[in-house]
Formats: sequence, structure tokens, C-alpha cells
Amino acid sequence: MDTVARLTILLFIISSLIHHISSSQTIRLPSEASISTSYCDSWRLAVETNNVGQWKQIPARCVESVAEYMIGEKYESDCEVVGKFSAEFVKGVTVGGDGRDAWVFDIDETLLSNVPYYQDVGFGSKIFNETSFNDWVNLADAPALPASLSFYRKLQELGFTIFLLTGRSEHQRNVTEANLLFAGYRNWERLILRGASDQGKSATSYKSEKRQELMSEGYRIHGSSGDQWSDLWGYAVSTRSFKLPNPMYFIG
Amino acid sequence: MDTVARLTILLFIISSLIHHISSSQTIRLPSEASISTSYCDSWRLAVETNNVGQWKQIPARCVESVAEYMIGEKYESDCEVVGKFSAEFVKGVTVGGDGRDAWVFDIDETLLSNVPYYQDVGFGSKIFNETSFNDWVNLADAPALPASLSFYRKLQELGFTIFLLTGRSEHQRNVTEANLLFAGYRNWERLILRGASDQGKSATSYKSEKRQELMSEGYRIHGSSGDQWSDLWGYAVSTRSFKLPNPMYFIG
Repeated sequence: MDTVARLTILLFIISSLIHHISSSQTIRLPSEASISTSYCDSWRLAVETNNVGQWKQIPARCVESVAEYMIGEKYESDCEVVGKFSAEFVKGVTVGGDGRDAWVFDIDETLLSNVPYYQDVGFGSKIFNETSFNDWVNLADAPALPASLSFYRKLQELGFTIFLLTGRSEHQRNVTEANLLFAGYRNWERLILRGASDQGKSATSYKSEKRQELMSEGYRIHGSSGDQWSDLWGYAVSTRSFKLPNPMYFIG
Repeated sequence: MDTVARLTILLFIISSLIHHISSSQTIRLPSEASISTSYCDSWRLAVETNNVGQWKQIPARCVESVAEYMIGEKYESDCEVVGKFSAEFVKGVTVGGDGRDAWVFDIDETLLSNVPYYQDVGFGSKIFNETSFNDWVNLADAPALPASLSFYRKLQELGFTIFLLTGRSEHQRNVTEANLLFAGYRNWERLILRGASDQGKSATSYKSEKRQELMSEGYRIHGSSGDQWSDLWGYAVSTRSFKLPNPMYFIG
């Protein structure tokens, strides 16, 4: 029994050591990955607050972090909170009976999600490829952003008139309508796409002009929702603007 | 040795079980704390993108999360990345020899940090108390935001003319100057504070007016830095605007 006792103590020490080593792995210096995550989180905030200016690609070291953000729960949570504050704002808006209380929605990354496409092309790590993106658009397969669909429906219940104002081209009208219906959107008042005369204009100018036209028709644009500041800034801006997150691409 | 062998196997099994149990604790359902963190991160993004609208207090459940953000490395990292993109932008600006190439800085939470004050009053969890804040301002003890001080110095090396445009009152001129010097700022061109005729104006109107006056004097305002959108929006806006983070309070 003396051998057994000694062996027991030895095994106990070894087991404790193993456990100690495995626990101590949780206390370590920040790895390169975690330094990069912290930079990439700050880069993402800088994108959302328009501090980065015009940009064409995600920084190479942030591709993984953006992928994780878009696919994980954070993007969904961020969109839900935008929806929550949009809904809180409209609670305070008095909707008249004349059908002139309006809301303007952008489409891509606002009503529809192109994440399935961007997942295939590295989440914005490569320069935008118009051909492959248009192929994706033609599938009319983009799902709804759940928080936006839910807010869209709430607006309709409240009696708002809904305008869709997109940088997509007039040539894409049919597939865009088909996609919106497929994703669950119904009964918008008007879908405004870039016509021949709008080509070459900046997104900010084109969208401001179109909002101006709506205002001239007598619509009161209480709010706009978009994932780009160019959906929201410029002139003829709505009373309140709601910026949805988008760290995958920039439109100026 | 038969007993020894059996005991060894038994101890091995126990040790493995203990290890398994301790490892499996890392796989668990999200706790209330982590759900709240995710909401508070999204709330913070909503604040930074101006989706929350006018707000007076941090939501009670986010006080801890905001405290952690402000005191931890994230706030510092976010400010550094704003500094990095500001510096990248100015690299492309041609500075003439006429002293008219200008930059406009806000002061509180832009050049100077009031975190020591906000730490004492719950990081914005309580309604703003003008009396206690003014007592703090009178101490002239606010440290510099390191990333802003470094960018400020870079602008001076490049030959920019620097204007400080703050919502602080004209009565606070002396303590504000003393504090700026204490924090390491030197050689600004002009410190603009709210005079008697500026009282009651919104921050956006007051700051737009003052930028307009600078432009009328012939200054080319290439950039503005501020922690509030009211530092940056309105009219007579600078070529580029840089939004520093601030989840502690809102100024409209």
C-alpha cells in the first residue's frame, strides 16, 4: 500500500500540473489576432461614422473580422437596434389622412441583404465587380433584412406612404420588383431607379434630387433609412435619418 | 502491482473527467450579461451614427458597458483610428503660404477629455448637471486626448491654422485657455466661445455661423474634428469631417 500511496500522490501532482497549465493558457499577452480585432472594430466604427472617406476594399487584415461581424449576431443586433429607434421615432409622428406622410428606403443592405453574394466574393475584400453583382441581382434571390421588413410593415400599419429609392439601374426594375416581393415587401408607392439622365451623378446628388421631387409633389418625408450616408445626406433631407451598418462597401 | 495498475486507471479517468467538466464550461448559453453587452454595443453604434436622436441619459443597463468602453482600450483605439484617417486625409491637402488653410477643433471630448469628471458622475447615467460640470471645468485639469494632441501637432507642422470652436461660454475663456496649455496645446489662432448673442442657439446653428464667418474671412476649412454631429453638420461645413466617439452625452 506504500507504493500505491506514493503513486496516488504522484498522479495527483501530475493531474494538478496539467490542469494548471491548461488553465493558465487563458491568461496571455494579446495575440496578433486580438490586436487586429481591436483595430478592425475601430476601423468598422470609422466606416460607420464616415471617417474613412472614400474606400474601395476592406483592409486585408480585417476581412475575417468583417466576415465574422456580418455572419454572426452583431450585424443582426445592430440592425435591430436601428429598427427599434426608427420605430420609437415614428411613434411621435402624426400621420394625416392625405397619404402624404412618407418614408424613403434604400434597397441594397437596407431592405434586401446581399450577404449571400458578398460571402462568395470575400465580403468586400476585392474591388467591386459590377458584372458578377448584376448576375446576382438578376437571380432576385436576396433575402430581407428582418429588422427592416418588420419596420417597413409597421410603417404601413401606421399609414405611411413608402418610397424606394435605389442606385440600381432602371434596367433592373423587373428583377428588383420580383426580389422585393420574394423577400416579403408589398405595396410600396413608387420604386425609383436610376434612369438614363441619372447616370454619372453621385449617389448623394441623385438621391437628393429625387427627394426634392417628392417634396415638390407635397410629400412630407419624415424619415429615410439607408446603409450609406449618401442615402441620407445632401439636400431635401428627411426629418430623421437612420443609418444601417455596412462594413462591406462604400458608395459616395 | 495489480492494485497499482487499477488505481492508476481510476485516477486517469477521474482526472480526465475533471478536465472535461472544466473545459465544457466554456460552451454555454449566452448569459444575461452578454445579451446586455451585445445590446449596449449596438446602442453605442446607434449613438455614434446619430440613430438615437436626442438623448439625455445612458440606458441604465448600459452604464457598466459604457464605463468599460471609456476606461478600457476600445475608446483609445477608436480615437487613434480617427486620428489615423484624419492624418491620411491631410497628407493630400496642399497647404498654401497664405495661412488660410484651416482646421476647426471642438474642445470637450475632442481635444480635452472629461472622463475623470464623468467617471465620478456615473458616465452619463445621470442627467447633465451644469453646476458640477462647471466646477470641474474651473479646475482646468482635463487631460488631452492623446490621439487628438498628436494630430493637432501634425497639423501645425504642416502649416495649418487652427481654430478652436466650443460650446463653452465666454465666461470660461481663461480656465479653458489654462486647461488647453496644461494639456499640451499651443499656438491656436483663435478660441471661439459662446458669447452673449450666441446663447440659446442650437450647437449646429452656432457652430455653422462661426464657420461661415471664418470662411468669409477667407479661411479654407479643410477639416473639422468633433465628438458630436452638431460640431460637424449644418452649413459652411468643412471639406471633411471627423467624428470622435462619445457615448456619454449628446449635444444637439
